Amino acid sequence: MQDDFVGTCHAVIARIAPRVRVIDLTHGIAPQNVLQGALVLRNVLPYTPVGVHLAVVDPDVGGEGRLLVGPDNGLLVLAADREGIEAAHELSDPRFRLPDVSRTFHGRDVFAPAAAHLAAGVALDELGPAVDPATLVRLELPEARPGVATVLMIDRFGNVATNLRRDDLPPPGTRVEVRFALDRYYAFVAGTFADATRGELILYEDAYGMVTLAVSNGNAARLTGAAVGDELRIVEA
Amino acid sequence: MQDDFVGTCHAVIARIAPRVRVIDLTHGIAPQNVLQGALVLRNVLPYTPVGVHLAVVDPDVGGEGRLLVGPDNGLLVLAADREGIEAAHELSDPRFRLPDVSRTFHGRDVFAPAAAHLAAGVALDELGPAVDPATLVRLELPEARPGVATVLMIDRFGNVATNLRRDDLPPPGTRVEVRFALDRYYAFVAGTFADATRGELILYEDAYGMVTLAVSNGNAARLTGAAVGDELRIVEA
Amino acid sequence: MQDDFVGTCHAVIARIAPRVRVIDLTHGIAPQNVLQGALVLRNVLPYTPVGVHLAVVDPDVGGEGRLLVGPDNGLLVLAADREGIEAAHELSDPRFRLPDVSRTFHGRDVFAPAAAHLAAGVALDELGPAVDPATLVRLELPEARPGVATVLMIDRFGNVATNLRRDDLPPPGTRVEVRFALDRYYAFVAGTFADATRGELILYEDAYGMVTLAVSNGNAARLTGAAVGDELRIVEA
Repeated sequence: MQDDFVGTCHAVIARIAPRVRVIDLTHGIAPQNVLQGALVLRNVLPYTPVGVHLAVVDPDVGGEGRLLVGPDNGLLVLAADREGIEAAHELSDPRFRLPDVSRTFHGRDVFAPAAAHLAAGVALDELGPAVDPATLVRLELPEARPGVATVLMIDRFGNVATNLRRDDLPPPGTRVEVRFALDRYYAFVAGTFADATRGELILYEDAYGMVTLAVSNGNAARLTGAAVGDELRIVEA
Repeated sequence: MQDDFVGTCHAVIARIAPRVRVIDLTHGIAPQNVLQGALVLRNVLPYTPVGVHLAVVDPDVGGEGRLLVGPDNGLLVLAADREGIEAAHELSDPRFRLPDVSRTFHGRDVFAPAAAHLAAGVALDELGPAVDPATLVRLELPEARPGVATVLMIDRFGNVATNLRRDDLPPPGTRVEVRFALDRYYAFVAGTFADATRGELILYEDAYGMVTLAVSNGNAARLTGAAVGDELRIVEA
Repeated sequence: MQDDFVGTCHAVIARIAPRVRVIDLTHGIAPQNVLQGALVLRNVLPYTPVGVHLAVVDPDVGGEGRLLVGPDNGLLVLAADREGIEAAHELSDPRFRLPDVSRTFHGRDVFAPAAAHLAAGVALDELGPAVDPATLVRLELPEARPGVATVLMIDRFGNVATNLRRDDLPPPGTRVEVRFALDRYYAFVAGTFADATRGELILYEDAYGMVTLAVSNGNAARLTGAAVGDELRIVEA
């Protein structure tokens, strides 16, 4: 089955807005992992053309700014907050949904059609009544504390992205101890993977500005057993 | 390797029909699982624009109806039967194949070029002689019997889709016993996932109208051990 | 995370060259497996339209020949050698990179923008100074020796592709013994999968001309335990 969910949404959009181009940003968000989706969307959005963003779907429209389409479960708001939210609307007008809305596949029946109609030029306020942006569901990211990193996301290479930013770390080259559960690991603060020798544990700023624990040519999540939500203590060694 | 098979077919189509748009419906069909491919194609087709359908490839052409391109192993016929088959043709004319047809990659050498030429405007009957639609390979779906569901397909979330339709189930809210092998599971008939509490086993109609066994936030296939072809007995509890 | 790396590169290209079409050839190369990437690129390139090839990204441009964009680690040269290398250029001009080049995501920050600018019509020599093609990193493929096959690549079906070509094998139908480590397997030289019965071990020429060890409806890599770089001895039985 895998991606026929995605393919069906593409097909639905192509029927409604045949000339609109769709760019797939990712289909790799783990089931139900709204936090991962919200973080990836926040990270990736600055690199995309403006247009309509359907969670992972991004048709190429005019220059009037970004439109984010998706469920009100926190997925969109991390990204939206980067540029500020001007308006939010319910997707309730049946003209811009498929005729039969299933109970389990709103991507196909509600969100993809809305994105396609917007990309085809329908005005945002035609889709449904305005809602107060302050009432939208927001994800709470754990605040960074000195010496404590909370795991936000783990990628398929086992790199462990945290809530720290570069300024929360000691300077590159510093040796640190990473404490997790009953274990302690020696690591060092690196500018990039290239500064590490094979198998070495490093802390570095990833390409989206998130401080990340990684093993050169290895899998840091498997090595440490760290999972999303865990706290790592970082102490100069 | 994974998807360079798919990418190569895209490339072959782009050389033959550079202006044609291709929509990927799915690349997640398990190897050799023609039944899964045929069911997904049948389910998804009504949501796609009309055009040429190369098993998973769907370029956007004019309004003359749907063309399905692929092997004669049953993959296409479940979907084709939804709208009826007007004509079927062999893909034998070498003008519409790649010059060297390999023995193992007909997707690249035969089917993708045929789809591209059709999308570029070549008439169906130029591709090869007509064949009698009645002679095409057909998959036999097990017929629904009262109280017996045959497993047709399992998706990556472990949802177990069966041959039953909504009318074969008791009304929503009914508690049922699902018997498989020597085990018995209590489940209830739900309108949607949202009606279930975390971990609960439910039977519901999925977004394509197939009655499906699922666990809210869990994996029904792993829980029950059910596999494609297995029969589940459903008894009111 | 999976494919937001890819999606971000698509987005970056779409901002720079919005009218350029991008064809995804593969995202299935294993992490750090430059050899697999180089082989797939060499195999697939003849089937693609000419244009700019960004390792996995291939926009559709005019007829002036192929441009390969990517890191100088051997990935591109196997493919380039098929047609000969006319010129090579560094990607050093900051006008054709993103403003902030991260240390870990050159695909997004350097290679995707370069490919997009080339596809949009920027001349190759504007991107940076010429480098001598003879100085590019080249992968050494093990040379074929009579009766010895070196494993080059294993696909997701467990098919084991080697450095042998069709002419290095005895004629179809010949029974052979494949020796690996302390084990011996009986196999036969097949024209195609269709010549084998279920579960039988065969040696055949794959659709790209590589001699491959496979099991009909099975997994040859799992059966034999062979890995990339291993040598298989092939003796007539």
